[in-house]
This record gives sequence, structure tokens and C-alpha cells, in this order.
Amino acid sequence: MTRSLVLTALGLLLITSLPIRADDQDVIDYRTHVMKTLGEQLDAVGLILENKIPPDNLGAHLKVMAVTATQAKKAFEPKVQGGNAKSEIWTNWADFSKRIDELVAGTADLAAAGQNVAAVSGKMRSALKCKSCHDTYRKPLK
Amino acid sequence: MTRSLVLTALGLLLITSLPIRADDQDVIDYRTHVMKTLGEQLDAVGLILENKIPPDNLGAHLKVMAVTATQAKKAFEPKVQGGNAKSEIWTNWADFSKRIDELVAGTADLAAAGQNVAAVSGKMRSALKCKSCHDTYRKPLK
Repeated sequence: MTRSLVLTALGLLLITSLPIRADDQDVIDYRTHVMKTLGEQLDAVGLILENKIPPDNLGAHLKVMAVTATQAKKAFEPKVQGGNAKSEIWTNWADFSKRIDELVAGTADLAAAGQNVAAVSGKMRSALKCKSCHDTYRKPLK
Repeated sequence: MTRSLVLTALGLLLITSLPIRADDQDVIDYRTHVMKTLGEQLDAVGLILENKIPPDNLGAHLKVMAVTATQAKKAFEPKVQGGNAKSEIWTNWADFSKRIDELVAGTADLAAAGQNVAAVSGKMRSALKCKSCHDTYRKPLK
């Protein structure tokens, strides 16, 4: 009885101290949510810079992009193939990681321009290298 | 010649000082980008709270949700039917607007809990009323 109680206690201890074990699909879904967030907010910024939507939220969109960019590295750290990610992400991790750092810096720079439409427009091309990174590390979208 | 120059100058002045005129589809797309951002980040939070993904980014996700919530009212202000929005948004604007304010307050409250998984879990239900608001103001999704 005592032994069985101890075993039960040990079992509970083991269960509650287990590391989080993400299922591969969870990892893929998670990083997809992060990248789609960036895409949705970039599209919103695009509508503003094309003068189609008033710029009231411009600073808020750039702030969201800057904070979301900081989520990306952790999201891609688990070496889980699948989704739109090419395996080169992990074979060239140093380069990919550096590009994420540049995305973090670039979006922070854009966010610092706040509501200034002209300043943001001027910085966009140098701050964001979406296409170059996607061409290298993302599978062609269907 | 002088008159034509003046007319040209007046024309240019008129064009450059025209208010932004959003096409209806732009307005619909814009608010859809804002709401999808919330959805993507909420899904990421969900994976963390279900213990499927480590909580490293939890505070950053909640921060993004809080800033994105502040984008929503401006996005829905133009009375443009379409997309998933029900017309009740504009016929009951005072109520809809109050719910957006509650979303802003609720997400700010969640963001204040930062990386504290237990605190965030405990606050989720009271902080977010997604379903209630969607049931009232969003067309059923296909």
C-alpha cells in the first residue's frame, strides 16, 4: 500500500514535470499562425500606403509587425519539416536566423516611424526582405 | 494659355487634396486583415495554453492581440456592407462599438499578465467574448 502510494506519487511527479511535447503538426500550425499574422498586417499596411485606407492605424500595424517578428525565431527553432517551410531553414540555420534578426530590426525601424506615411513608404523596401527570404526558404505557394 | 495653366494647377491641387476614397472592397479587405490577425494570434495562444507549444512567446502574442484590438474600431467605422460583417454592426453601432472597447480592455488585461500561463488561462474567458460578438455581428462562416 505504502509502496503503491509512493509509485503513484512518483507517477504524478513524472507526469507533471514532463516537458511540453509538441506534435509536429502543432509546430507547423504555430509557425504558420505567426507568419500569417505578419502577412495580414503587411496587407493592411499596403492598403494604407496605396492610399486606399486612411492611415489612422499605420503605427499600430507596424507595432504589431515588430512584435510579431520577435515571435518568429522561436517558432522556427524546432526542426520539424512540413508546411511551407523548406528544409534549408535548418540546414542553413545561421543564415535563416540572421534573416529573422534582420526582420526584427527592420520592423522595429518601421515601427519607429509610427504614423509618418512618407517615412514608412521610404523605408519599406530596405526594412523588409520578404521576397528574398521566401524565395530561399519557403516552398512555392499553390 | 494662362487660363489653361491655372486650370491645370487647380486640377492638380484638387487631385492632391482629394480625401482618401476607399473602394468598398478595400474597406472589407482591411477589416478582414485586422480580424484575421486576431484569429491567428489567438490560435497561437491556444496552442500554448493547451501545452502544445512552449510559452516563450505568450506575452508577445498577447501584446499583438492588444495592439490589434485597437485597430478594430477604425476598421469597422466605414458603413460598408459585405464580407462576414452583418449590417447590425452599423444599425447597433453603439453596442458594437462598446464591445470593441471591451475587446481592447480585455486584451490589454491579458497582455498585462505577460508570460504567466496560469494567470492568462484564468483570465481568458472573462477577457474575450469572441463567440458572443461573432454570433451577433458576424455572418456564419462557410
